[in-house]
Amino acid sequence: MWILRINMTDATYRLEEPSPAYKNLAGRAMTSTLVSDEVPPLCHPLGPHNKLVFSAGIVTGTAAPTSSRISVGAKSPLTGGIKESNAGSSWGPALARMRIKALVVEGLPKDKKMLGAFLTWDAAQDKPTLEFFDASDYAGRDLYAIYPEVYEKFGKGISVASFGMAAEYGYGNAGVVFNDMNKRPSRYSGRGGLGSVMASKGLKFIVLNPGGAPGVSMADKALFDEGRKKLLEALQTHDITKPKGALNSFGTAVLINILNEAGGLPTRNFSSGRFEGAASIAGEAIFEGVKERLGKEVYNHGCSPGCTIQCSNTWYKPDGTEHASCLEYESVWAMGANCGIDNLDKIATMVHLCNSYGLDTIETGATIGVAMEGGLLPFGDSGGAIDLIHEIGRGSSIGRTLGGGTEFAGKAYGVVRVPAVKGQGMPAYEPRAVKGMGITYATSTMGADHTSGYTIAPEILGVMGKQDPLSPEGKAALSRAFQATTAFIDSTGHCLFIAFAILDIASGYQGLIDECNGILGTKWTADDVYAYGAEIMKKERAFNEAAGIGKAADRLPEFMKTEPLPPHNQVFDISDSDLDSVHGEM
Amino acid sequence: MWILRINMTDATYRLEEPSPAYKNLAGRAMTSTLVSDEVPPLCHPLGPHNKLVFSAGIVTGTAAPTSSRISVGAKSPLTGGIKESNAGSSWGPALARMRIKALVVEGLPKDKKMLGAFLTWDAAQDKPTLEFFDASDYAGRDLYAIYPEVYEKFGKGISVASFGMAAEYGYGNAGVVFNDMNKRPSRYSGRGGLGSVMASKGLKFIVLNPGGAPGVSMADKALFDEGRKKLLEALQTHDITKPKGALNSFGTAVLINILNEAGGLPTRNFSSGRFEGAASIAGEAIFEGVKERLGKEVYNHGCSPGCTIQCSNTWYKPDGTEHASCLEYESVWAMGANCGIDNLDKIATMVHLCNSYGLDTIETGATIGVAMEGGLLPFGDSGGAIDLIHEIGRGSSIGRTLGGGTEFAGKAYGVVRVPAVKGQGMPAYEPRAVKGMGITYATSTMGADHTSGYTIAPEILGVMGKQDPLSPEGKAALSRAFQATTAFIDSTGHCLFIAFAILDIASGYQGLIDECNGILGTKWTADDVYAYGAEIMKKERAFNEAAGIGKAADRLPEFMKTEPLPPHNQVFDISDSDLDSVHGEM
Repeated sequence: MWILRINMTDATYRLEEPSPAYKNLAGRAMTSTLVSDEVPPLCHPLGPHNKLVFSAGIVTGTAAPTSSRISVGAKSPLTGGIKESNAGSSWGPALARMRIKALVVEGLPKDKKMLGAFLTWDAAQDKPTLEFFDASDYAGRDLYAIYPEVYEKFGKGISVASFGMAAEYGYGNAGVVFNDMNKRPSRYSGRGGLGSVMASKGLKFIVLNPGGAPGVSMADKALFDEGRKKLLEALQTHDITKPKGALNSFGTAVLINILNEAGGLPTRNFSSGRFEGAASIAGEAIFEGVKERLGKEVYNHGCSPGCTIQCSNTWYKPDGTEHASCLEYESVWAMGANCGIDNLDKIATMVHLCNSYGLDTIETGATIGVAMEGGLLPFGDSGGAIDLIHEIGRGSSIGRTLGGGTEFAGKAYGVVRVPAVKGQGMPAYEPRAVKGMGITYATSTMGADHTSGYTIAPEILGVMGKQDPLSPEGKAALSRAFQATTAFIDSTGHCLFIAFAILDIASGYQGLIDECNGILGTKWTADDVYAYGAEIMKKERAFNEAAGIGKAADRLPEFMKTEPLPPHNQVFDISDSDLDSVHGEM
Repeated sequence: MWILRINMTDATYRLEEPSPAYKNLAGRAMTSTLVSDEVPPLCHPLGPHNKLVFSAGIVTGTAAPTSSRISVGAKSPLTGGIKESNAGSSWGPALARMRIKALVVEGLPKDKKMLGAFLTWDAAQDKPTLEFFDASDYAGRDLYAIYPEVYEKFGKGISVASFGMAAEYGYGNAGVVFNDMNKRPSRYSGRGGLGSVMASKGLKFIVLNPGGAPGVSMADKALFDEGRKKLLEALQTHDITKPKGALNSFGTAVLINILNEAGGLPTRNFSSGRFEGAASIAGEAIFEGVKERLGKEVYNHGCSPGCTIQCSNTWYKPDGTEHASCLEYESVWAMGANCGIDNLDKIATMVHLCNSYGLDTIETGATIGVAMEGGLLPFGDSGGAIDLIHEIGRGSSIGRTLGGGTEFAGKAYGVVRVPAVKGQGMPAYEPRAVKGMGITYATSTMGADHTSGYTIAPEILGVMGKQDPLSPEGKAALSRAFQATTAFIDSTGHCLFIAFAILDIASGYQGLIDECNGILGTKWTADDVYAYGAEIMKKERAFNEAAGIGKAADRLPEFMKTEPLPPHNQVFDISDSDLDSVHGEM
């Protein structure tokens, strides 16, 4: 295993042996540790001392089901704190198969010229090798235009990481993009502006061709295989994750109707928990719409190799040609309910534009919601919203007021109702209607982030037994448990969606642990992996505190504590001491 | 004495007796205490729970020399922390003469309609009385157009507090404006966006007519008079503050040549400490320019009643008509050296526009410097800079990227060299060339603020004996002493410029203390007034910590620690522990 460091100050690279302390670290554990160890917490996120770290998970690159996640970490231009954002793509497995434990991009180029890095396996020397190439011609262009050119240049077997025009402007809202299974620039480490960190370093592409690479080494392949089978069995049994189950049929947008019913679907910039147009944009409507336009039932596909859940969809135009991929729950909500827009074709256009320009769909939709609140355009104005995304992509003046994200746009337009924590816009769950999720938003090291402690599983979906979403009771402990467990899952390289199955089916959880023990040669128990997750959060928390983001930042915006939210007419009533207990007892 | 509370939720007011704990508080001590006691540190600065507090100083409204300061306080939209910003105007004495210890504006109006408040003295009832008036017609207009209308409406004897269009947009950069001696809207509590807090409350004007009011009560008038005379004697003797002395002749811009010589005049967005065009924009050039255009030597005038220093100037067009007032050092630097502009006529236009739109000149110039660094226009482009101020004033899209101030604009344009602390742009002293001032910028509760601990006095001007500006030795203690002393002076209502005289002339300092003891009936010593100042800072610091602004925010931007500044080629080399000692030992 190597740490591959790319220094953009002089366009060089080197392979290092990782420190023994890093032996069992991968994915989020690796990126957050490296950022903690090497990035000064008070550095400028786009300056010479920030580092961008890529790391695949412990099991990524193996036959473990649904495990092709790649973690990206750095100091975030959006939150000013530590950031890990992971995506599903063939890129992660490719990196893992080349036995690169972490890829670190450092320094700042002396000029504005963009380079690309092409990594292949040098069989003669039995190690990865890297060549830089001039990427100037790819800057300032639509990602859908340049991805085919990169595949043309380097061949079909590659995986591609990049960023769009949004990142070239240095926006707080600009993701790192990876290819999907159809070579589209559609899988994002979207949150927190990591694309802008990559752009500041002048590294337009990291292209991987792992052909000939040895693959992931395993300490105990039999144990790994045993674990893999247990996990697979759980995934293929659970109602949410099984073939033709909820996710495979309706995609993540299956949640639109469910959250709307629960009164927790943030609508028109978090002014209601229920959207009258929900049914028109729900996963079921996507399924039916595709059936009508293609003349057949289409179940979803995987975003990355080896996924058995397969929740990724494609939306089609009336003539049956492709319109956008993927219409995730978060994206449909952000562009839809949150902006008062109930038309899937308009939403698909907005999602596609975000992919074209390299924007995080959640941050973009949350920002447009705030702009609508600020009077820039009326709620429901889909044409105006589409124009705004173009403005962001063009880097126009108005685009720059919005490219900085939700909180930034709120300041530009003097808006008081700004749904953000630590500078990051809120995702698609209303904290006043789903209290545990509010605790996660408030206390996550990442800013408002649903994936960092997805209490929706018990509060809405009944995983591990149903809990009342409106009740504050026991929710701090629930969020803490989910946050620590998630930090571990984010380090394995599995998709977070395995959580539904492993939390309900004990053998699935054991399978996950067996997989990791099989690869690493460890003897981890359930307690050990919880402690592993908690340790990651502790490091992230320490980084944030040194960056000036402490307890006072573990709070939801004021309006959620004073404005009751229809239809339940509740405020966010978790006490500050409950919020503080999340990290206090970690 | 009363506390007058204006509640804008229902457009009512009431007079309260102040708590006994507030007995000796005035000016900054009063505003910071009231904000600490009543404003939730995590509230939205433009939301219903912020309060805007006005308080004149202990001696304001008396015959004490140079004592007509009015303090304004609130949670700042710019820094997110507590803010006190004071101005010289007849407004402060008028408030004090009506025996209003603090005027507090609370609540948020239900609609967007603007009101004004007209305060007069009700002799029959022996107390102040207030009437609201419709101020809708004044919104969205140049302050130079509306001030004469307000004087027309209410008569010559009034004083007027207001805000400009910048505040109506909710910008982080928008001041509270007061009239000067010529009824112009030119005296600002400029820093920290307090104008936007006032605008959010829909209170366009606070007009005072103190006719018939009893004036400031005194416990021991003889002691007060004795103190006043000692202080006056010191002011009229000291070279900096005496008639036809440095300030009276050349205004505050006398510092341009001095700081340039010291290599501490921040030039082209803090990339050098020396500006080749300094002599063309210095106080001496203003004096000579006015002499040439008016055909006579003109010494400066006071910004407010009873000032014996008289450092305020007016700049004239070639035809002898008025162009702008006042060309302060900070303004001339911000629009001049910091933007690479060496033409006083262009600078005067920029200053006048800031007054028209209600902008802080320091924040505006620092923001334009960052915009120039970000490639929006070249350094030295005065026409472009003037256009940008118009854009800010118009609330255009580009204006909104700049109206949020220096740090905000830095984010919008992806700039790494951003001279700001706690979100507030740096004033006209380079921390790498004047180390004590850097400590003040870093550790002030206000963000980068030269007035909160003006170590320039010893480091550059030799007040109290000259100290080497480049040396870090002893500077933390120096800044701490200046910050505490300043907090006291800001509570007396005296202009900070009395510091030159009272620090060099011991009887002057004693005079200041005698004045206060005479009014309040206290028996304060020099130690007591230092403790009084330190206590204010402690409260402000506690508010900031609860608002999430702690030790990590007491730092200068990264580039000042790594980029050596010409001509001395020094970095800011004060250790973090030295910075922490400022508040640690307070």
